[in-house]
Amino acid sequence: MDLVQSTINQIGPLDDRAATDAHRRQNMLTKPAGSLGRLEELSIRIAGITGRERPRLTNPAVIVMAADHGVARQGVSAFPQEVTPQMVLNFLRGGAAINVLARHVGARVIVVDIGVATDLPSHPDLVSRKLAYGTADFSQEPAMSHETARQAIAVGIACANEAIDSGVDLLATGEMGIANTTAASAVVAAITRRPASEVTGRGSGIDDSGLARKITVIEQALHRHQPNPADGLDVLAKVGGLEIGGLAGVILGAAARRVPVVIDGFIAGAAALIAATLAPTATAYMIAGHRSVEHGHAAVFSHLDLQPILDLNMRLGEGTGAVLAMSICQAACKILDEMATFAEAGVSEKA
Amino acid sequence: MDLVQSTINQIGPLDDRAATDAHRRQNMLTKPAGSLGRLEELSIRIAGITGRERPRLTNPAVIVMAADHGVARQGVSAFPQEVTPQMVLNFLRGGAAINVLARHVGARVIVVDIGVATDLPSHPDLVSRKLAYGTADFSQEPAMSHETARQAIAVGIACANEAIDSGVDLLATGEMGIANTTAASAVVAAITRRPASEVTGRGSGIDDSGLARKITVIEQALHRHQPNPADGLDVLAKVGGLEIGGLAGVILGAAARRVPVVIDGFIAGAAALIAATLAPTATAYMIAGHRSVEHGHAAVFSHLDLQPILDLNMRLGEGTGAVLAMSICQAACKILDEMATFAEAGVSEKA
Repeated sequence: MDLVQSTINQIGPLDDRAATDAHRRQNMLTKPAGSLGRLEELSIRIAGITGRERPRLTNPAVIVMAADHGVARQGVSAFPQEVTPQMVLNFLRGGAAINVLARHVGARVIVVDIGVATDLPSHPDLVSRKLAYGTADFSQEPAMSHETARQAIAVGIACANEAIDSGVDLLATGEMGIANTTAASAVVAAITRRPASEVTGRGSGIDDSGLARKITVIEQALHRHQPNPADGLDVLAKVGGLEIGGLAGVILGAAARRVPVVIDGFIAGAAALIAATLAPTATAYMIAGHRSVEHGHAAVFSHLDLQPILDLNMRLGEGTGAVLAMSICQAACKILDEMATFAEAGVSEKA
Repeated sequence: MDLVQSTINQIGPLDDRAATDAHRRQNMLTKPAGSLGRLEELSIRIAGITGRERPRLTNPAVIVMAADHGVARQGVSAFPQEVTPQMVLNFLRGGAAINVLARHVGARVIVVDIGVATDLPSHPDLVSRKLAYGTADFSQEPAMSHETARQAIAVGIACANEAIDSGVDLLATGEMGIANTTAASAVVAAITRRPASEVTGRGSGIDDSGLARKITVIEQALHRHQPNPADGLDVLAKVGGLEIGGLAGVILGAAARRVPVVIDGFIAGAAALIAATLAPTATAYMIAGHRSVEHGHAAVFSHLDLQPILDLNMRLGEGTGAVLAMSICQAACKILDEMATFAEAGVSEKA
């Protein structure tokens, strides 16, 4: 059995006992029951995910998958394709937004080349798992073979496993890839069965005529390839991207190891949809980091029944929203673990 | 001239030049312009507040003002009054939610007794500025004299000054006081000129009959005392609370010293309304930390034209929402200061 299937088989339900114990403890802490709202809910869910009544999340990391997209040549992005490798180098030098925010919350940044269209210099912090020099132009042919799609997911699983083996206990998904909102919109349209126009936005800032072109490209590709909405692997192969497949793998790998995984923005959302078709139970391990400005993100939340933690009008990707949300997840767990109970503190309870 | 008036006189407009420089720099950083949304806006506003193009906020503190309320005897709270001093002791031992969250974001907790109804043991971390053993029951008489109201504001200013003198560069407001949502609702109703029923909620969790009683108590007090909506000092004296006055002072003190001040929930919002009547310019220095579940918080945001950073269904107070938001403010400033520009990173700009 291959890594993808064995990982999927390993994903079990949440630990109800740990979640119930966490809930009971929240109600004993020195605050009106429920008054910390989403922090309490998050701590209870993370207890269920990890199987621990008082989980501690002390070693967060964001896995940033970078890849290129053949469909970029259709003029669907505001930035040229050369920006993908340029930004990977920026990540490695620590100058990008994800580096700044990850440093702020104390998270490691793991940069993975899963399909950048140019050769990148070797670097101690760059994980090289290049499967191709970008995808094929899905307006003309499938983005990749089913075999490559499966490999992309396997790369993500392997990266998650490696991080977890090194002690990481909280994962976030990040990405870089010029034109990847086009692939993500195609994936979201296919899996949620919504019209492309409803789930396609401006990405890094394309103008009106570019947006119209982007929607047409997606509509035509979906019509040409007819991806099966119930089969994320088929959708990934036909209209997806290598980094999207990689992130689907990160999510599956985290779920299999009972590690909470914070989903970043719209592209990570597309990866989450793919992961959920392959392993519906994996959804319980996903934490929606933030609500992106990108049109179509709402369709992802609605399909997966997730509520984002933050809503800061962000639309950058890279994992930027997810790392800020990781800090909220850590705060939630500290509340559960560190607060005094009414009995310990000698505080009178509600009359 | 007294401290309150001299502080108000010292509050000037934001530094437009620093804000403009910060905005220009944001547009040079390696991301699509505007793609970090509220983080960019926050960094620009904090530049305007501090007068620095690249502000760093490295020394955050939350000032938690504790006091009691005579109106508690009208049965308006789900918890007994003895909880106020019990929770102060919990703060001093580090077991409350505010301690846990402040530790998480690296903020100092400054606990101030400005009017707890019992004597508290002296403690190296407790700032004793008790003006009275709680307010009078404002359902029967004014909560305090105008002189005491002015002293409460002066205490807050002095606490802000002391913190800033010791190096604090980012302040948050927190509070503890059984029945203080009753006082806060009365203040919000008076200043925003809305009916009490529209701005009164369940506080720490009162039941339906308690809520009805709470609204009636507030309506009758407003009718009896007729506070002047344009004069926060009058409102504070007639239906406010000592900790609410103290926090209004913290806000004015921060604004006078050009230090950003993160407003916590509903009670801090009432303090912000009082501060704004005394010094309308102070509003520009306020950052709304989070949207509380407490009914009536929306009226505060609408009156002050503020947008909360977080929305996590919280309703605890103590400064808990504000300290989480302080971390977002710090992140915003780090983005502005630490990210590489397109030129520095050799990244191609938008086509």
